[in-house]
Amino acid sequence: MIRLSHIELGVSDLAASRAFYVGTLGLQITHEDDRTLYLRALEERGHHCVILRKSDKAEVGVLRFKVFPEADLDAAHAFFTAAGQPVEWIERRFMGRTLRTQDPFGIPLEFYAQMDRLPPIHQKYALYHGVKPLRIDHCNCFSPDVDASVAFYSSFGFRVTEYTEDAESGRLWAAWLHRKGGVHDMAFTNGRGPRLHHLAVWVPTPLNIIDLLDRMATTGYVTNIERGPGRHGISNAFFLYILDPDGHRTEIYCSDYQTVDPDLEPIKWDLKDPQRQTLWGAPAPKSWFENGSTFAGVATRDASLKAQPIVAP
Amino acid sequence: MIRLSHIELGVSDLAASRAFYVGTLGLQITHEDDRTLYLRALEERGHHCVILRKSDKAEVGVLRFKVFPEADLDAAHAFFTAAGQPVEWIERRFMGRTLRTQDPFGIPLEFYAQMDRLPPIHQKYALYHGVKPLRIDHCNCFSPDVDASVAFYSSFGFRVTEYTEDAESGRLWAAWLHRKGGVHDMAFTNGRGPRLHHLAVWVPTPLNIIDLLDRMATTGYVTNIERGPGRHGISNAFFLYILDPDGHRTEIYCSDYQTVDPDLEPIKWDLKDPQRQTLWGAPAPKSWFENGSTFAGVATRDASLKAQPIVAP
Amino acid sequence: MIRLSHIELGVSDLAASRAFYVGTLGLQITHEDDRTLYLRALEERGHHCVILRKSDKAEVGVLRFKVFPEADLDAAHAFFTAAGQPVEWIERRFMGRTLRTQDPFGIPLEFYAQMDRLPPIHQKYALYHGVKPLRIDHCNCFSPDVDASVAFYSSFGFRVTEYTEDAESGRLWAAWLHRKGGVHDMAFTNGRGPRLHHLAVWVPTPLNIIDLLDRMATTGYVTNIERGPGRHGISNAFFLYILDPDGHRTEIYCSDYQTVDPDLEPIKWDLKDPQRQTLWGAPAPKSWFENGSTFAGVATRDASLKAQPIVAP
Amino acid sequence: MIRLSHIELGVSDLAASRAFYVGTLGLQITHEDDRTLYLRALEERGHHCVILRKSDKAEVGVLRFKVFPEADLDAAHAFFTAAGQPVEWIERRFMGRTLRTQDPFGIPLEFYAQMDRLPPIHQKYALYHGVKPLRIDHCNCFSPDVDASVAFYSSFGFRVTEYTEDAESGRLWAAWLHRKGGVHDMAFTNGRGPRLHHLAVWVPTPLNIIDLLDRMATTGYVTNIERGPGRHGISNAFFLYILDPDGHRTEIYCSDYQTVDPDLEPIKWDLKDPQRQTLWGAPAPKSWFENGSTFAGVATRDASLKAQPIVAP
Repeated sequence: MIRLSHIELGVSDLAASRAFYVGTLGLQITHEDDRTLYLRALEERGHHCVILRKSDKAEVGVLRFKVFPEADLDAAHAFFTAAGQPVEWIERRFMGRTLRTQDPFGIPLEFYAQMDRLPPIHQKYALYHGVKPLRIDHCNCFSPDVDASVAFYSSFGFRVTEYTEDAESGRLWAAWLHRKGGVHDMAFTNGRGPRLHHLAVWVPTPLNIIDLLDRMATTGYVTNIERGPGRHGISNAFFLYILDPDGHRTEIYCSDYQTVDPDLEPIKWDLKDPQRQTLWGAPAPKSWFENGSTFAGVATRDASLKAQPIVAP
Repeated sequence: MIRLSHIELGVSDLAASRAFYVGTLGLQITHEDDRTLYLRALEERGHHCVILRKSDKAEVGVLRFKVFPEADLDAAHAFFTAAGQPVEWIERRFMGRTLRTQDPFGIPLEFYAQMDRLPPIHQKYALYHGVKPLRIDHCNCFSPDVDASVAFYSSFGFRVTEYTEDAESGRLWAAWLHRKGGVHDMAFTNGRGPRLHHLAVWVPTPLNIIDLLDRMATTGYVTNIERGPGRHGISNAFFLYILDPDGHRTEIYCSDYQTVDPDLEPIKWDLKDPQRQTLWGAPAPKSWFENGSTFAGVATRDASLKAQPIVAP
Repeated sequence: MIRLSHIELGVSDLAASRAFYVGTLGLQITHEDDRTLYLRALEERGHHCVILRKSDKAEVGVLRFKVFPEADLDAAHAFFTAAGQPVEWIERRFMGRTLRTQDPFGIPLEFYAQMDRLPPIHQKYALYHGVKPLRIDHCNCFSPDVDASVAFYSSFGFRVTEYTEDAESGRLWAAWLHRKGGVHDMAFTNGRGPRLHHLAVWVPTPLNIIDLLDRMATTGYVTNIERGPGRHGISNAFFLYILDPDGHRTEIYCSDYQTVDPDLEPIKWDLKDPQRQTLWGAPAPKSWFENGSTFAGVATRDASLKAQPIVAP
Repeated sequence: MIRLSHIELGVSDLAASRAFYVGTLGLQITHEDDRTLYLRALEERGHHCVILRKSDKAEVGVLRFKVFPEADLDAAHAFFTAAGQPVEWIERRFMGRTLRTQDPFGIPLEFYAQMDRLPPIHQKYALYHGVKPLRIDHCNCFSPDVDASVAFYSSFGFRVTEYTEDAESGRLWAAWLHRKGGVHDMAFTNGRGPRLHHLAVWVPTPLNIIDLLDRMATTGYVTNIERGPGRHGISNAFFLYILDPDGHRTEIYCSDYQTVDPDLEPIKWDLKDPQRQTLWGAPAPKSWFENGSTFAGVATRDASLKAQPIVAP
């Protein structure tokens, strides 16, 4: 498997979401119809990284992953079958055959090998606006049992780069796992789940994030700014968290580090160390710990670890 | 009068203050003895912009202002005498004759025309480190009566650029006044006073502020980070507030705007608009509204307006 | 006198100039008719900083300066009359009464006290695009006799901040003079003149200049990039020089230093030091030394000093 | 194979090289003795990315590549043996067993699976200085036959991301090949070779490159600045080329793009398009096309394609 490549979000008002993701963030429309919007970021050549679908409720449709070569799709089919997960071959627009399955907590996952390719636009600088999103980076999900989630994703190739351990129980509180050579493609945090905590897009520099803040703050989106800007202890990334009109959370993200060495040692953080969350010390707001987006048709269950107290350094 | 040019701070541990202002912020030492440290920023040619003086308690010695030409010193003497304020000619090291006086609330003020000049160092880039402080920008003080403070400073040449009005009483809550062509040399905020709220140094770009945050957060200064980074509504500046080892507050500041036109209209803000404080919406911590440094030997009195509730947008 | 406030350029194709100054640079249109375009930068509240006027030939109309208070207009009238220069009171659109005169080499100068004020837009971040021009900074002109130009402008209040001297003759090669507290409002360089070398606009950070380069390079303007990006030795500014569709040169400029102290010593540079031009060493192209825009109806004469050899460090 | 991981340079004056790579660039010393200096960049956990070795002449010792797992070392041994290249198992300090071999033109290559790991320092921000080098990125070499070089490296796993073709002959002029998911680990350019054109280090943002330029220009290194700053058309990277005291060239590099999809189509450039070299148009100096570092004990031969004329856009 190569990487997390796109996500499908159910949104209640396509025009409002278009204004947010296209007009404000700067994602590029690659296909649009009455009920759907396909978007790509500026250095991507795959057809889309985000699909917005008109929906009665705000929810997440599916997370999709690129595999390569084609034979790995069949290997994935065999793996998920052996794991006792439901599997199904389906056709998806702009892609070849797609394997639909789910993780042990019900997160809908799809795998494919081929997506339509579009000509490069990363040097069409007239298209750059908003936060200048370059590519999708990762998804972070609440899991009711992070140990179980990490064990499962590790079993088909994800590698842990950083993690937080609850010192008392010795259990995982949160973990970051990658395929593509950054800190993560997927992360899991203890909490009622499965729910999407956030989707992340990669941007060139912290100044683009400051530009976005200035713009959101003066175009009616000030209450959509949830947390940041700041530096995460974990991942070392410069971040901003914002909410779309339906409350789906996006992290604007840059400057984590390269993790391509397969023997790179995971970094362990203490649950009691508040700098793991914000290196600079400012605590995240309560909403950031509590709110998330449910997956369509997937029931959630309580977290296995008791909620941590929110502490400032 | 030309500008606010320097401030004298009483500090309890000169070595700790040296580590903070020189080692971490990057101010340059221009004179040092057992009890005093003179510092300048990188584009300044005057001998110093900050004096740190060993003191039994953390307090502010004096604010000093450059006038030019020399004759304006005599005019200042006449003005403060006519205003009924105590005046005194004194000699200060590294400067010529100095007029010592005070404002109506007792803030110690000194005026001088000549300070020793040092060779330029703004292109000695090997000296740049820390946050790369370029120059002193302004001081912000709590005043028990902002209307009275503004009236007084305006009477000798300060011009208001922005202000916050309490809609009910029609009285000033806070005001920003300049001489040198930026948003302010001096600002006053309603509060128990007189007290110094903060001193501000100007830096090149927001990225230098991010560098400082990373450095402070990983060298034992994480609890000295009080507020920010953020964008002020008022002044439009990108800011960070940090505390020195004695709790004296410094604002790291960049990107306000030019105000040299004498007929530039002041911008009025509503006390109920939280974006005046942080354009992006995040509220300041309680300490930021409450804590300040007293001036040596000067009694404080209660604010004339009742404290505002701290609100998020 | 307060500052250089705007310039009028004659352009051969208003639509092409509009695409350049508005679409690419990001100046804001404040008035537009068949033959004229009035533009302001993002932190300015005066009605305009650049006027583009349809013209048979590419040339410069006039440089205009704000004075304050109104009485200084009469003082200027007296000064130029005494200096033997032609003077005339005229009415200009969007301004009050205006004094038209010229400098000893014929550069058309106009002075006014009042310009229409527009509401602030510096926090309307949705308007920011292109290079995010904040304000007009300065004009630089070829002068056939820099000593004479500097003497004249100094006689009505300009102060020299930096200069280049021809060591052999002891004469000025170039000089930078300010009113508003930066390195310059006006600069003069030895050369066939009078001609405008360039107009400069101030931008927030070097990254905005890099963004402009990327955009110009990929939208048909690559040959309009003449020199840079780089750091000037003189002024310490980060710069880029670009050419508009008529060949008028604009400098995109940031990060010079504050010069408000009236006793700030000018910095002297040796004509043989190539780092005065580009601190980093790369030489300017020949065109940059030779090309300039004539002033409408003003004859030029040869430079008084022989052209310097163009040298790399 | 995982990635290019380090390079060994022969230098004539270890103290001068130390001042350059450590004092000016900001690489960290991990081991030092009389004749050798081991350096790592700030986000690396492997023991070193550059080895400087005292040498009678300026030359390149070897390029080394990390493979994983250990079994891939044996596969590499088999591959190079089958390819008719000399192979040898050797022991290298701070690494496990190492395979020494060479490419068809004689470039000395070594492969290893294990290097000593050091604790992370990427959040020890007090160590960051100079250009804040984060990691080694790639090496670029002159090849007398780029087609042959590309064919060879492709046969053991490198993938071409961009290339320049000579339209007349249909032969490759230059090519960029990667393993780790960026634009390249190795590049080859037509020229007398084999010679190293440059080593590249990755830095966070273009502003760090501007800081380095300011510093080099004012600390005696102005003539070590060879080309830039600029944006490459190929790779889209923001670049600066500098020369160490022996003339070894380093590229300071940031902001290329992610290439992890194995089916990413290579981008083809026309040899006649000058924007492939500098998107913004400024031509590279002659030295940049001509100078390179020889590999120790390896004879060079003439380029197979005739030198291109150096053209500006």
